[in-house]
This record gives sequence, C-alpha cells and structure tokens, in this order.
Amino acid sequence: MAKIPHRLYLTEDQMPKQWYNLRADMKEQPDPLLHPGTHQPLPEEALYPIFCEKLAHQELDGKTRYIDIPEPILDMYKLYRPSPLCRAYNLEKALGTPAKIYYKFEGNNTSGSHKLNSAIAQAYYAKEQGLKGLTTETGAGQWGTALSEACAYFGLDLKVFMVKVSYEQKPYRKAVMQTFGADVTPSPSNTTEAGRAILAHDPNTGGSLGCAISEAVEMATTQEGYRYVLGSVLNQVLLHQSIIGLESRQAMELLDEYPDIVIGCAGGGSNLGGLIAPFMRDKLTGKADPRIIAVEPASCPSFTRGKYAYDFCDTGHVTPLARMYTLGNGFMPASNHAGGLRYHGMSPILSKLYHDGYMEATSVKQTDVFDAAVQFAKVETILPAPESSHAIRCAIDEALKCKETGEAKTILFGLTGTGYFDMSAYEAYHNGTMRNHVPTDEELQTGFDTLPGQPE
Amino acid sequence: MAKIPHRLYLTEDQMPKQWYNLRADMKEQPDPLLHPGTHQPLPEEALYPIFCEKLAHQELDGKTRYIDIPEPILDMYKLYRPSPLCRAYNLEKALGTPAKIYYKFEGNNTSGSHKLNSAIAQAYYAKEQGLKGLTTETGAGQWGTALSEACAYFGLDLKVFMVKVSYEQKPYRKAVMQTFGADVTPSPSNTTEAGRAILAHDPNTGGSLGCAISEAVEMATTQEGYRYVLGSVLNQVLLHQSIIGLESRQAMELLDEYPDIVIGCAGGGSNLGGLIAPFMRDKLTGKADPRIIAVEPASCPSFTRGKYAYDFCDTGHVTPLARMYTLGNGFMPASNHAGGLRYHGMSPILSKLYHDGYMEATSVKQTDVFDAAVQFAKVETILPAPESSHAIRCAIDEALKCKETGEAKTILFGLTGTGYFDMSAYEAYHNGTMRNHVPTDEELQTGFDTLPGQPE
Repeated sequence: MAKIPHRLYLTEDQMPKQWYNLRADMKEQPDPLLHPGTHQPLPEEALYPIFCEKLAHQELDGKTRYIDIPEPILDMYKLYRPSPLCRAYNLEKALGTPAKIYYKFEGNNTSGSHKLNSAIAQAYYAKEQGLKGLTTETGAGQWGTALSEACAYFGLDLKVFMVKVSYEQKPYRKAVMQTFGADVTPSPSNTTEAGRAILAHDPNTGGSLGCAISEAVEMATTQEGYRYVLGSVLNQVLLHQSIIGLESRQAMELLDEYPDIVIGCAGGGSNLGGLIAPFMRDKLTGKADPRIIAVEPASCPSFTRGKYAYDFCDTGHVTPLARMYTLGNGFMPASNHAGGLRYHGMSPILSKLYHDGYMEATSVKQTDVFDAAVQFAKVETILPAPESSHAIRCAIDEALKCKETGEAKTILFGLTGTGYFDMSAYEAYHNGTMRNHVPTDEELQTGFDTLPGQPE
Repeated sequence: MAKIPHRLYLTEDQMPKQWYNLRADMKEQPDPLLHPGTHQPLPEEALYPIFCEKLAHQELDGKTRYIDIPEPILDMYKLYRPSPLCRAYNLEKALGTPAKIYYKFEGNNTSGSHKLNSAIAQAYYAKEQGLKGLTTETGAGQWGTALSEACAYFGLDLKVFMVKVSYEQKPYRKAVMQTFGADVTPSPSNTTEAGRAILAHDPNTGGSLGCAISEAVEMATTQEGYRYVLGSVLNQVLLHQSIIGLESRQAMELLDEYPDIVIGCAGGGSNLGGLIAPFMRDKLTGKADPRIIAVEPASCPSFTRGKYAYDFCDTGHVTPLARMYTLGNGFMPASNHAGGLRYHGMSPILSKLYHDGYMEATSVKQTDVFDAAVQFAKVETILPAPESSHAIRCAIDEALKCKETGEAKTILFGLTGTGYFDMSAYEAYHNGTMRNHVPTDEELQTGFDTLPGQPE
C-alpha cells in the first residue's frame, strides 16, 4: 500500500450516485411530524404547501434505503465534489499522538461549507416542479450562501431571512448572497405577520433562527409559486448530506482504513447526520462498531442538556411539531456565542439514535473551541469555521487520550467549513474579549417553559 | 477517452518535483538588477542583506533549467496541491461558444490565492538559513495571508506592512494574518525612516505597495536575523510559481488537450509568469505556438501604456533598479480601483518576453471585469477575486470571438483566487457606485516623471 496522501480526492467517476437513507436501517423510526393542533401525524400531502412534492416525500420516506441522485444534481455536485479526505499528519505530529486523524473537508466551495450538498438538491426539485422561487432563513450565513448559489445555478428566485444580529455583523455574507442574485432581509422584519408579532413584543431583538424560520415559512405559504427550504434538522437534509459520509467511507476503504471514532459538530444535525450515515449503518447492521460523537456548544446544549420532546421547529409556531432533543423553541443562545450551532432543536433522526444509545454527545466551551481552531490552522493551514472547530476540539481531545494510553486509534472528523466570515469571533478570541457562557438551569428552564403541550 | 471531468486533480504522486526556470530557455536574458548609484549589475552577495542566500542565488540564476523542490516545501504543497484543472462546461454553455474553456483554480487554500506557492518556498529557505523572521508588504492581503501561513508552519516571525487603505478597508484580512501569528502594521508607518519620510510629505496618504516595500526592506536590513520577501515581480517568485503551469500542462496532457490561448491576469506577474512558464517554453523551443495574453487593469496599465525602462521596485528608492515595463515608481492607481494588480512595475522576465514579442497584453475596465466575475460565479459557483476576474473577462471575450467565427479553440486561463475579502468592491458594483478610471496621458506623465536616470 502506497503512503497515504495528505488529501485524497475520489475521481468524478467514483462519486456516489445514490444518497443513503439512514432511516431504512433504524430499528425504530424517528417519531413522526405532528399537526400542532390535532397532534395527528401529517400525511405527505399536508406538507405540500411548505415543501415541494418530492422533498415532502423524502421527508416522510423511512423505507427506501438508496435514492438515485438526479443527473442535474450530480452535475452541480461535480463543480466541488468529491471533497477531499485529509490525513492530518501535521496535527498528529504537533500533538505527538499515535492516533491517525482524518478529516473530511467540506469547505472547498464558495459557500464555504457542506450546506451546498442539500441546497442543490432542494433547489433542483423546486425547479423540476416548476416553482418560481424559494424562501429560507440563515444564521451565520453559510446556508443562505449555499442556497443562493444553487438558485442562481437552476434559475430560481430566492428570499433569505437572515438573523438580524448576523445581518449586521456580517455585511459581506449578505454581499455574497446578493452576488448570486438573492434577496436578503434582516429578521425579524415587518414584511411578515410572524416578524411583526415578534417585533411588537421586543423591538430590539437581534433575532433567532427560530424566528427567521417563521418568517420564511409564512412567506412561502402565502406567495404563489414559492416553497420553503431548510438547511438542517429535516430528514431530507440528512438524506442529501449522506454523500459526505458515503464519500468518506469509500475513500477510507481505498486506504484500507476504518474509523474507530467518528466526530461531528452538531447544530441542527445536517453535517453530523450526513457524515455518520454509512458508519451508523455499519453499527445498526452489526458490521462494525465505531464510537460516534456529537459535539455541541456548551452555550446551546440541546443533546446534552435538552429534553427529548415534541416541539415547534420555529419560534412563531407556524411549523409542525417534531420530536427531538430541544431547549424549547423560545430558547435564545447568549449573544456572546459566536458562529452557528445556535438552533434550539436537533434532527429527529439523530435525536432518536442518541435516545436509543447509538451515539454519544459532548459539549465544549467557546474559548476551548478557538484554542483548537488556531492550533489546527497553524499546522494544517486551513482556517476552520467556528462550527467545524467544535469537532476539531473533540478530535484533539480524543487524540490526546490516545497519547496517554498509547493506542493508535483511527479518528475521523467532519471539517464542515471555513471561517473567512467569522473573523470578528477570531478577533475577540485574540483580543481576549471572548467569553464563555454556560447557561444555568434557571436559564434553560425559561426555554423549556416554551415547549408546547405533549401528545398523549 | 473518458469524458473530461469538471475538475481534474492530479494525485500527490503526479505533483511536479521540480520548478522550471523559464530564463534557461530565453533567447536573451532579462536585463540584470543594477545598483542605483553605480548602475553596475549586482553580484549575488550584494543581495544577501535583503534576501536569504538560496533565494538570492535563484534570483540571479538564469541557467539552471530545472530546480529540485526541497522535500519540506513539497510536504506543505501537499496540503493544498495539486490544485484542480477545471473545465468550464457551464460557462461555455452560458456563452454558447464552441470554445473549450479550462481554468487552473489556485484559490482552494486558506490564503485564497496562488501566492502561497512562493510564500512556502521563501519561508522554507529562510528557516533553513537559520533566520529569525521575515518582513514583507501586502496590498489586497493575499500575499500577507499566504506568508503568514507559511511562517506559522515553519516557525518564523513575520512583520507585514499592509497598504494603509487596505488595512482600513479589510480588517478581516488582518485578523486572518494575526490568527497565523503575524504582526501587521499599516503603511506608511512611523516605525521606519522610509515611512516617516512619506508621511512627512503626505500625512493623509492611503499608502501604496511601493511605499510598503520600502518599509519592509528597511526593517529587514536593519534588524538582526530578518530578511525581506516579495510575493511577485521577482525572478525567484516566477520560478516557484512555475508549479501552476507545470501542473496545468501535465493535466491537459492527461486529457489529450493543449491550449490555443493561455490567459493570465497581470499585476507584478507572479501568476502569469507561473501559469505560462511551460507553454512559453514550448513557444521558445518551437514545440508549440500558443497565444499568450496578459490582462491588466485599465487603471494600472504597466504593459500596455508603461515604459520599458530601469526603475526602482519601491517608492522609497531603497531597492536595486530593475528593467521592466513600469508606470514610474511614483505612480499611484486611482483610489476607486478595487482589488490588487496595482503595482507600478512588471516582472523583468515577462517584460523582456513582451518586449521581444512573445506575448500579448490587453487592459480591461473595472466594471467589465465585475460583469465577467458575476457571470462566472453564477454558473461556475466560484466567487472569483477581482484580480482573477481580469483573466475571466478576457477568456469570455476570446470565447465570444470563437462563437462568431465558429472556431472551437481551447482556452486556458488562471483563476488565481477567491473574492471573499473583496465584497466591498462587489457591493460597489451591485450598487452602481463602481467607477472606471482610465488615466490620462498627463496623469501617466506624473508617474513617468519619477523614473530614475537611465544607465548608459
């Protein structure tokens, strides 16, 4: 076997032609979406006003194991995929660990993150259905950028509600989206009822993802020819993101490697669910038994301190109820929390797997995350996004445990993206003004108080 | 032959192990560096106070055709090289051209540009010589970022003089350099004599590359254990950048392709010189006869409107004299000129080749450049740097000529980098506030008036 390269790119021909639907191998399905009034499971048709039809189908399809990726989606994937599987030789050396560290780098595209994988799919199906445009929300801006690229490519209108605090802190993110032709509005705005209601209650709010979702859903369902798309949490998103894990597993196979530990950062679960998909399949089907670790911010700890309960996906209560680990739809992460991973809930699929004991979760503090980010950047020469750096932190910690025990474990983590638009957070870290926030039980309780009544 | 992929990555094993020194195949050598007082050619040793010894040797070595790339440099190259050769299927389709358009994309690394190729080499040789640190200047910031990465990797101090107007317009560029441990000072500064002299003359100046060079050279030559490095113009830089062209030529060979036209943007010539190197060799040795086109901004037109003359490389007159196409060391591009490509001179190697008729040059206006950038971004989903977009403009224009004539020419252009840090220029373009500036002959004359007396 030749020396393992620093970066392994599969060829275009080796790129997976199907997504993998993890639900098909789960012993028990994640709990269904419920109508918030009747608490009855929603049939596919009930989702059509929100999602385009094929995506509504994918959202509820727990059975089809492999789904063909349509040719036009593959064509756009080929503009930046397969993404590289990287061997972190330099990080290993800097840590002095016997562990072998791999990372799947999803930041080699203009959106700067893995979000593009699902954006392309969602835009394509909308175009195929003959729709005019899409609405969405964005926080840190990676999802909005990704969707802007996809909509420009397929020729769709796009209206983005951007969390106001991000809109103000990241004007250049907005400019990137505008370059791709998107219309960007700070949220909450007075262009929707949901936005006006939130502004009436708190005119100075910096907004939240949950609130921006309410606005985007309302606009999609009230404008002819528009549908709503979401970059994380949803089952369909995890399906599209499975390409990350499929490529990773295939590349490792070519190198005669298999991970002992798979690590992903977790906000709504899009990267984590995609990265782990084929490894979780191995676990569910008894082929292998890797440790799977979700890493979340201590300031927004849905897995580690949330409740497994039915909750709204948004603050304005216009969405169905999903059963997931949640901090309550009214939860707001502290304003000094930098970067993404600030959603109140977690993918229902991942929530179910975590609840059933198939994966672990851990939370990390912000300054520890940036320590890891800077250490990684200096030796691996990639400037990581704060989100991705949660996974780096955990991978370094696991590699250091290997140094203590002398075990040469194989670690794979997801490097979801780059941090070019997060330099104000890096500056706060350098200046020593970055603060950690671990919510008290009382603070968390104010979020839990916003949970809806639970179904019988 | 299989279908040509959208992106072709050579494997790590296929990466060139030697740089190519274009001078070895030139019929006549570029004119030598001269001492500004005596007008005598400088011996290698005379450069040692400025450059480390191996780089001084490379600067003057016009004979050695291939130079081995040291293993530690190759190791760092492997973190982001080989870079992809991309087939612009979507751009071709959007233009309706029979031309085949390829681009070599050098933006897939944290510095966001090709500059890293030479930064790594220069940092390595300095470390090998046992130096403590380096000084340099940066304008748009790509070079400073690249060198910050290289210095962090090899463990060298770095002092960056950043053109003041860029320092103020691009605070996040500065933050990226600081993340990699660099010390960044706005230029002109009061930390050097050159800076103080310029400030005394014009306290409100926004600075220039030429002025930042003066400060960096002064600091390198007055501080123990420091040397100066430059990201463009120099012969050594073109040598290191030859890896761009070598990879391009090799990848095209694998695809059974050869360019009829090779296009590169030209500021100081680092990308252009690297990209065209092996194709120019073919031309010089009679193997092939591709058209080679340099594209420069109409607002800073050194090739198309400059003089072929001996000039200082800096504003403060601390450097040797180089014979090159120059607008005069006192030339300042208009303040509404966005992005890089604002240097008053041009690589002596490229200047000689242009003077001797081996290549063409053209200049383009800023808004035409951004038209091309946005058109490209929407279909190829890469957000190009303004610098790179000069080459895109020319490639599109050549492809449109093919559309008229029906010729299926093969076009290769250099996509040097990404535009994440240039969003204020994109915003000006979107808002309609971007202005073109074509200097009048009188304006150019004020630059020419700063040319030194020419040698006999």
